[in-house]
Amino acid sequence: MSGEKFKAISVADFFYKNREIAGFDNPVRATYTIVRELVENALDACEQYSILPDVRVKLIDEGNSIYRLKVEDNGIGVPYEQIPYAFGQILFGSKYTLRQSRGIFGLGGKMAVLYGQITAHSNVKVISSQGGYEKYMFELSINIQENKPIIKKKEVRPNPGRWRGTIVEIKFEGDYIRAKPKIIEYFRQTSIILPYANILFIDPDGVLYRFDRITTVMPKPPQEIKPHPHGIDIEMINRMINSSRSSTLLDFLVNNFHRVGVATALSFLKSVKIDPEMNPRDLKPEDIVKLVNKMKVYDKFRPPDPDCLSCIGPELFKAGIIREFNPEFVTVTQRKPSAYSGHPFIVEAAIAYGGRIPIVPPDEILVYRYANKIPLLYDLHNDVTMKVIKKINWKRYKIDLANMPLAFFVHICSTKIPYKTVGKEYIADRPEVEYEIEWALKTCARNLRIYLSKKEKINIAHRRYSIIEKYLPIISQFTTELANENTQPNYEKILKRLQIHAKESEQRSIIQVN
Amino acid sequence: MSGEKFKAISVADFFYKNREIAGFDNPVRATYTIVRELVENALDACEQYSILPDVRVKLIDEGNSIYRLKVEDNGIGVPYEQIPYAFGQILFGSKYTLRQSRGIFGLGGKMAVLYGQITAHSNVKVISSQGGYEKYMFELSINIQENKPIIKKKEVRPNPGRWRGTIVEIKFEGDYIRAKPKIIEYFRQTSIILPYANILFIDPDGVLYRFDRITTVMPKPPQEIKPHPHGIDIEMINRMINSSRSSTLLDFLVNNFHRVGVATALSFLKSVKIDPEMNPRDLKPEDIVKLVNKMKVYDKFRPPDPDCLSCIGPELFKAGIIREFNPEFVTVTQRKPSAYSGHPFIVEAAIAYGGRIPIVPPDEILVYRYANKIPLLYDLHNDVTMKVIKKINWKRYKIDLANMPLAFFVHICSTKIPYKTVGKEYIADRPEVEYEIEWALKTCARNLRIYLSKKEKINIAHRRYSIIEKYLPIISQFTTELANENTQPNYEKILKRLQIHAKESEQRSIIQVN
Repeated sequence: MSGEKFKAISVADFFYKNREIAGFDNPVRATYTIVRELVENALDACEQYSILPDVRVKLIDEGNSIYRLKVEDNGIGVPYEQIPYAFGQILFGSKYTLRQSRGIFGLGGKMAVLYGQITAHSNVKVISSQGGYEKYMFELSINIQENKPIIKKKEVRPNPGRWRGTIVEIKFEGDYIRAKPKIIEYFRQTSIILPYANILFIDPDGVLYRFDRITTVMPKPPQEIKPHPHGIDIEMINRMINSSRSSTLLDFLVNNFHRVGVATALSFLKSVKIDPEMNPRDLKPEDIVKLVNKMKVYDKFRPPDPDCLSCIGPELFKAGIIREFNPEFVTVTQRKPSAYSGHPFIVEAAIAYGGRIPIVPPDEILVYRYANKIPLLYDLHNDVTMKVIKKINWKRYKIDLANMPLAFFVHICSTKIPYKTVGKEYIADRPEVEYEIEWALKTCARNLRIYLSKKEKINIAHRRYSIIEKYLPIISQFTTELANENTQPNYEKILKRLQIHAKESEQRSIIQVN
Repeated sequence: MSGEKFKAISVADFFYKNREIAGFDNPVRATYTIVRELVENALDACEQYSILPDVRVKLIDEGNSIYRLKVEDNGIGVPYEQIPYAFGQILFGSKYTLRQSRGIFGLGGKMAVLYGQITAHSNVKVISSQGGYEKYMFELSINIQENKPIIKKKEVRPNPGRWRGTIVEIKFEGDYIRAKPKIIEYFRQTSIILPYANILFIDPDGVLYRFDRITTVMPKPPQEIKPHPHGIDIEMINRMINSSRSSTLLDFLVNNFHRVGVATALSFLKSVKIDPEMNPRDLKPEDIVKLVNKMKVYDKFRPPDPDCLSCIGPELFKAGIIREFNPEFVTVTQRKPSAYSGHPFIVEAAIAYGGRIPIVPPDEILVYRYANKIPLLYDLHNDVTMKVIKKINWKRYKIDLANMPLAFFVHICSTKIPYKTVGKEYIADRPEVEYEIEWALKTCARNLRIYLSKKEKINIAHRRYSIIEKYLPIISQFTTELANENTQPNYEKILKRLQIHAKESEQRSIIQVN
């Protein structure tokens, strides 16, 4: 009987061995995932710095199932010395802060590099500049066993045009033909939520997909924030104590937590019976457990400030939807900020009706889901949004899911989206999130009901008008003849008045609800 | 405009920040996951070494939502110097080989330790011995930022009884009341697939759940194997070349690959036009790409040997099902080994009918899914098994899912189960796997149809016999009276013969199909 053979593996090795977890199941899925991860990094590099995104994506078929993907952005750029790590070391990145961003795992871009390496023996080629006099070119691969970048080639080049941005190029084994519907859908849905972005995609057949910005208004970029006391755990508080210079607990709470002022801190410490003058380093492990448990449930902390969030906002959301569907009616709601376990989040929802929206087969519902502006294309049926849509009694809103041309849109933005998987496929059903989605959709549903009933009233008015229009002349003629008169009464005036009235009420209705 | 703040985080930090990915969403789910992960490690420590498992699990409510879990096994034990790493460093373990085991990620046990630490500030307490004169006690926690074990306490104790095994104790924040149904179900389903294991669970209310072994027969433990050429990628072959001493490609292939002999290697190299005498270290990157691509598709490699797999086998599977359901009929099929992308796998399936199996409400189906002997309790509707059950035309087998007391069982064992998530929740629908599950269930369905139609025939025979039994005496009496005789014919003999005949055919039928 021999013992077990023990060994440690690197995190790169872990994700190499379990790449299906990050969305690299097979060539089809990998093609989609690589495009998505690189486009998201490109968009984040722009939006986080209020740069209007110009993203160009080109996918080239090199034969034998090998593709070359090139993604170029006009974002902030990556500093020279960080490039090897930002593209060649897993779990190295700029996204480990409390701020909303698309990427949260510091994983996707590097998984794309890794996948290219193991399927096509390719290096990633990166060109980047922050707008200075130089731009930098690297060719990199990953030492998977040690999770370290290997620099194959590097060059410093002059940058006379002061170009700023990043170009990434990767070769990999893929299958564009089967991945195509998802990829096009990804771009289409991205353009809906980003009406201020220019996105260009040239596919391997040379077909050009262009999504031009229709506005230069951008939502304000998200701010970085301190942790909220409701979202704390023991590990976090220990780290904060170790890196803090505060000599009293009162100071420590006020300096390190989101929206905790002196008064709040004092009344909290009083409620847990801990001396505010105590040095946080003197807290015993059992005190820390007590402190954390009380923090999580103490209900007088102010709710998290949504300043760290960057919603799309009703106007931009509506513009994106109108560009795509040109609907007869669209209503958008933004909920007030809420929080789950200390993570602030905001839900935005929309319902659009008519226009280019098709009537889908029964059992299907047209749902567009977004999380931190990322469209979610897989696993709709596990998502909390679907759960909510199935729960709502649509008949109450006179909405017939099976026979009306409807599209639903739900966007949740948060410092931490409760994803169920690394592949960012669907959102777990946290009760707080579920509640907000439900009420956002119900508000939209109410607006749609008002529109539909106004429309119905207008229809009735129109029908009434056309009946009157048809018979009034005849009645007028009859009565004139019966009365043995020669001139008919001036019914034209009545008709005109009725027509104006119908039109006015139509306009009033639409202005009111749309 | 400031630049991005870049930093690297440890893998422990990654999983700490994204613990929902590993099944630690909330206290309810975490309670279930911790129990499961530790029980699985305990079972693996026994079964991999042909030790009949004795696993005792005790969960104690310590108040304030804090629980203490103690899991004891009689397995192989952990060597003294490995204990800190095996429990305090994520991605350190004994399971990174090509061999079937429950754990594949080297993650679950450590995530339990990490979760205990961040929710209850607890250390993990480990006592282990490999059966020598000493046993070892450690109290550990994890330095999450550096992914290193912190030894809080260690002791070497005498082991006069030469006890062998491991005891793990963790405190954590949980919710047993809401996790209870899943936990009990987990133990019940585990006992079905492990009829040779003693499992004891004492819950926080002091209720004792006992699953005693009913056999001492165990399946043979899985063997470690070399990689199959169909499952190769560029990274793997580069690593193999770096660690190989072979000076020719022929030697290299024969020594490093599963089921590749000299003849196979030669004909493969001929087909790709590479010189067998070439030194593998002289292969250029483009040669390696070519070699790997050809290896993946070359169809003359022998299929993987299932010796590395440890199925439960029809006899043991049936025994487990009978113990749990005492069904009227049960049929088990084991398919021949198959493979997907170079990973061998075997599907075993069973259908049981009657006995203690309830008739479930329509729309529900009683399905027990296992992967490498782990019961899968979540996300049934995403699992490939459910897809197959919905696809099969059960009417062809005279099986009525809605009105018959039926239970379905599917077990897949493989060196690499195609899980979709780290939480080991459900199996991706690889076509090869889907095919095997479909045919396994169809074979079972055919057997069940045969049984049901035999049963129907027996019923007819019985009904016929009882009619004859009732009327033969009357007919006999009538005919005797009509013939003016005094003594009736000896119809008793005829009845007895018919009865014997009916019974015999009944026994024959059951022996034949059961």
